[in-house]
Amino acid sequence: MAVATQSLEELCINSIRFLAIDAVEKAKSGHPGLPMGAAPMAFVLWDRYLRFNPKNPKWFNRDRFILSAGHGSMLQYALLYLYGYDSVSIEDIKQFRQWESKTPGHPENFMTAGVEVTTGPLGQGIANGVGLAIAEAHLAAKYNKPEAKLVDHYTYVILGDGCNMEGVSGEACSFAGHLGLGKLIALYDDNHISIDGSTDVAFTEDVSKRFEAYGWHVQHVKDGNTDLEGIAQAIEAAKAVTDKPSFIKVTTTIGYGSPNKANTAGVHGAALGGDEVALTRKNLGWEYEPFVVPQDILNHTGKAVERGAGYEEDWNKIYADYKAKYPQEAAEFERYLNGKLPDGWDKVLPTYTAEDKALPTRKHSETCLNKLAAVLPELIGGSADLTHSNLTEIKGQGDFQKGQYQNPNIHFGVREHGMGAICNGIALHDSGLIPYGATFLIFTDYMRASIRLSALSQAGVIWVMTHDSIGQGEDGPTHQPIETLASLRAIPNLTVIRPADGNETSGAYKVAIERAKQNAPTLLAFTRQNVPNLAGTSLEHVAKGGYTVVDSDGTPELILIGTGSELNLAVTAGEKLTAEGKKVRVVSLPAWDLFEAQDAAYKESVLPKAVTKRLAVEAASSFGWHKYVGTEGDVVSIDRFGASAPGGVCLEKFGFSVDNVLAKAKKLLG
Amino acid sequence: MAVATQSLEELCINSIRFLAIDAVEKAKSGHPGLPMGAAPMAFVLWDRYLRFNPKNPKWFNRDRFILSAGHGSMLQYALLYLYGYDSVSIEDIKQFRQWESKTPGHPENFMTAGVEVTTGPLGQGIANGVGLAIAEAHLAAKYNKPEAKLVDHYTYVILGDGCNMEGVSGEACSFAGHLGLGKLIALYDDNHISIDGSTDVAFTEDVSKRFEAYGWHVQHVKDGNTDLEGIAQAIEAAKAVTDKPSFIKVTTTIGYGSPNKANTAGVHGAALGGDEVALTRKNLGWEYEPFVVPQDILNHTGKAVERGAGYEEDWNKIYADYKAKYPQEAAEFERYLNGKLPDGWDKVLPTYTAEDKALPTRKHSETCLNKLAAVLPELIGGSADLTHSNLTEIKGQGDFQKGQYQNPNIHFGVREHGMGAICNGIALHDSGLIPYGATFLIFTDYMRASIRLSALSQAGVIWVMTHDSIGQGEDGPTHQPIETLASLRAIPNLTVIRPADGNETSGAYKVAIERAKQNAPTLLAFTRQNVPNLAGTSLEHVAKGGYTVVDSDGTPELILIGTGSELNLAVTAGEKLTAEGKKVRVVSLPAWDLFEAQDAAYKESVLPKAVTKRLAVEAASSFGWHKYVGTEGDVVSIDRFGASAPGGVCLEKFGFSVDNVLAKAKKLLG
Repeated sequence: MAVATQSLEELCINSIRFLAIDAVEKAKSGHPGLPMGAAPMAFVLWDRYLRFNPKNPKWFNRDRFILSAGHGSMLQYALLYLYGYDSVSIEDIKQFRQWESKTPGHPENFMTAGVEVTTGPLGQGIANGVGLAIAEAHLAAKYNKPEAKLVDHYTYVILGDGCNMEGVSGEACSFAGHLGLGKLIALYDDNHISIDGSTDVAFTEDVSKRFEAYGWHVQHVKDGNTDLEGIAQAIEAAKAVTDKPSFIKVTTTIGYGSPNKANTAGVHGAALGGDEVALTRKNLGWEYEPFVVPQDILNHTGKAVERGAGYEEDWNKIYADYKAKYPQEAAEFERYLNGKLPDGWDKVLPTYTAEDKALPTRKHSETCLNKLAAVLPELIGGSADLTHSNLTEIKGQGDFQKGQYQNPNIHFGVREHGMGAICNGIALHDSGLIPYGATFLIFTDYMRASIRLSALSQAGVIWVMTHDSIGQGEDGPTHQPIETLASLRAIPNLTVIRPADGNETSGAYKVAIERAKQNAPTLLAFTRQNVPNLAGTSLEHVAKGGYTVVDSDGTPELILIGTGSELNLAVTAGEKLTAEGKKVRVVSLPAWDLFEAQDAAYKESVLPKAVTKRLAVEAASSFGWHKYVGTEGDVVSIDRFGASAPGGVCLEKFGFSVDNVLAKAKKLLG
Repeated sequence: MAVATQSLEELCINSIRFLAIDAVEKAKSGHPGLPMGAAPMAFVLWDRYLRFNPKNPKWFNRDRFILSAGHGSMLQYALLYLYGYDSVSIEDIKQFRQWESKTPGHPENFMTAGVEVTTGPLGQGIANGVGLAIAEAHLAAKYNKPEAKLVDHYTYVILGDGCNMEGVSGEACSFAGHLGLGKLIALYDDNHISIDGSTDVAFTEDVSKRFEAYGWHVQHVKDGNTDLEGIAQAIEAAKAVTDKPSFIKVTTTIGYGSPNKANTAGVHGAALGGDEVALTRKNLGWEYEPFVVPQDILNHTGKAVERGAGYEEDWNKIYADYKAKYPQEAAEFERYLNGKLPDGWDKVLPTYTAEDKALPTRKHSETCLNKLAAVLPELIGGSADLTHSNLTEIKGQGDFQKGQYQNPNIHFGVREHGMGAICNGIALHDSGLIPYGATFLIFTDYMRASIRLSALSQAGVIWVMTHDSIGQGEDGPTHQPIETLASLRAIPNLTVIRPADGNETSGAYKVAIERAKQNAPTLLAFTRQNVPNLAGTSLEHVAKGGYTVVDSDGTPELILIGTGSELNLAVTAGEKLTAEGKKVRVVSLPAWDLFEAQDAAYKESVLPKAVTKRLAVEAASSFGWHKYVGTEGDVVSIDRFGASAPGGVCLEKFGFSVDNVLAKAKKLLG
């Protein structure tokens, strides 16, 4: 079909296809198949429905678009280019998948304006979308007034077969159906092909029926390759259903237009090759050189710039009215958008003395969360069905449920991974909300992919993890973290804090809230069991990651290092050794990466190189501790799986007793 | 209702309930609610259908039973006790959740005979069940003869709301429906309560409809509390459907019989308390003291001993006939059951010289897998939709599909977590099969909970992980492992091997196969990119975890340590330094835990304490390396997220070049 016979819409769609084809071809790497097949639905969505302002990608009330099938990234880059975003130029597209380009292999929100969330690990994007829709519903319920809809946008997601096979998407979509998130609209690129070939080899379930079972509004566009009106009608019908999220199955042909590779796995994740590119050009009647988009197409898509400016202008008027009428709400809302904390917010965090009652740090966490919620209404979150174990409820405030979206307490169900991706989505709604998600520390294993993505994609989430050691007790080895702290400390950009008592819990929350506002996640590890409040701990010093809790005069002979519930053991053993005339320092090291970020002088002041006799005490794996105890030091640790018994018995049996710490310390002292 | 008016069956069911109630009460810890509600279905299943031999819990052809809702462990312990297993005595039940008891908080297969798989982390058990059913189907298809059904058993699973909320169960059950595993029968304890209260707060999907969408045969027993015949009829109907797995929703009341706590979250995970126990006794007409089961009940349930001996005797006859008629198949089958490897199996593993062509280690892995498959027909596995990237296909053999269960190549779909739990199930079928599961190394994050369970529950799985560093290239940071190796090395009982070349890949498979037969998992990390074969590497030495590849005369001044693709950098840098007159040793450290398991003399011979100038090179996080480089050493590592660019560019930019290694080495040498 020659260009002359193609409609402007067809030309737009083909321009998306060929930008993808040519960029992948040049990079000799990438995934042309999805952009070629999904271009029609993406075009209809972006051209007719998606509300955004390309010249202000962060305009608050924009519709959110997520390409959950992130390997099809060229689809998104082509759209960003065509629709007038400055973040992706044609030169950027030529640099697809090259070092430091704006067009990396998968969409990265921190690299490219217009990309809302990082996608690529399958299933995460659609689950992030549930988070974005939750954020929208929450803010709308809290701030909108009958005459002033300050918050009013859709969240659109394109997802593929891979996303639908992943459990995380099932968890999040089941929850979205439960919540009835009517402004979440997912378009399923049903192309029947995954990397191993036809989905017939592994994935023959009735996906639409599954989404119906979740409580979604479900439609099917049978010809997603050419039926643009069908796609449009489905989107309109989806928008008209306001009490359910919408799932639109759009049947397409992967690699549409490629005479020999369409509808094969060969077009999923590899360049077409020069010959097939030429054949595809001929087949689709595309007469232009690589990376050339005719001006009339750019003229058409470029109208989005003016349209977008208009959207923002209209909204600015609403906002101005709102500010005039509701100055208090507007001030709070504006503080959110500016990423600011209210003055003196951290004054609510309690401090403790050694005389205060011993409590589990999870209980201190509950206190902090509740005191913070009183001054930081942007806190929203909950637990994966362990609310009263994690102690994460904001008391006196209701549950976030269908029709009650103004409330902050989310019951995620037993869906750790879904919770993780949803919290990331809430954070990346970029509206100042601070999401938190809670479960037992061991079950970070279920949601690790999302925790990693919070660190990578700069999502300011607080991960509240309780039952942080074998002190957990009777539930036994499946529920007792051993290697978990090490595995989390190793994640770049994730601050892991294991506070020892009330003061350090307050300090941990201070860090976590500040980091959240800087778009950085923090994971907090709390005890199930009681721990005493210690004389030398400090709210402020947690931010330094490590500090001296008890010291001797002059250079110590031995440094005892503890974290969390074991700092107390180090302190008590230190006292006994001091009473025996030894010079001992006790160091608390609740957050390794924060300590590493201190200057060399500070680190040397806490852990002087000259003191090589060092004993760390932590009811967890020794993995990683040699960085601090060196080759001459030792670690009281547990390097096997735990056991089912009362927590105190477990700790004692595994050597977390003052006697054992003393014995190991004395061995080091010689 | 007084005892006198209760049927024997009702008394049996109440005995299960009160064993659970009393054990939890004594331990002051545990979950009475599920056993109280699920006792009827469990009783009907165990009493009328489940085929097992209590005096030989490992009898091969037993039906497998999994309590996926593992927190209800007392249900299983009560059944094991009542039905004549020696592993659980009444004294053991009194020791519920105590140190080293046979009745830990959650069922642990390595603690208690009769427990097939460790459960507790929700969703894993049902997914393990899919693995058990796959193992049964595979062995039946391979070994059964029309007149001799050597392999012929069901896999029964009891799962709860929590299991059904977890994504891993969705992944595995979608796959089970695809495969049409007719001998998998799941009973869903539909009690509407999870820890946060009514499932109405988070989980309102139509679960049955979802399972229909997966392709399961679905039934509903509306009164699971008292309708024993309804339960029985549903199980019979499920058995009659041979081409689909069966899902029986059994609606029950959690904590059935407790006047004040039934149907509340309060009975889920806490002891009833003395008063409520007394009221429950009264309500259910249970006149016996704690831990007392009347003899007529024990007489009834104890008939399972004779019944079981009969089952095994019948099977032994079938097996004897089979051996006579099919000696070759029988010999192979018997070797499986004995956990033996055929003589000389490892001779198929290739070795290489430095002249052999540079290849990716994933390519060497493919060679090993295929050569091993020729001598080890017990290999069965595949990839989570990355078959031709992971290179895990056993060539010339077919796909494991419905009706083709004899084939070893499993297409798991994009379901890493499901794959993990399924592989664990195949291993824990305990029939000598060696399952392997593959994906990109980074996506171990999706399946970490299952990898951990393989290590905890002694499942001899081989985890085949490719694209093991930033050398992965263009896919970018979401696909590039950084902290992944560290996070896996930290897991107890999991051997992680990162081979440098062809010889080490062969050595890695030798270790992995041997460990699998010892019920221990191994994770192998392979490159995407080419690596040269090195002169000093050794197949045999991989088993030692670390060894000297190149050495100087006498004590070295510097030790360079490398793993995987970076060993080559260490060797080349070492050569250059040697040419400059430095005394340098190069050590390969492919498997840390295997090295740690060597005696002190060997370790000292490889890494002498006196040599403190040590430089490790690994394209991954430095986390954990200080154990080997000490406080005076250094690591060429990457302690941030990766980037999208061609793999060679990534490696160069992040310092994985001979020049950078040389520069760091010279700095250490001073």
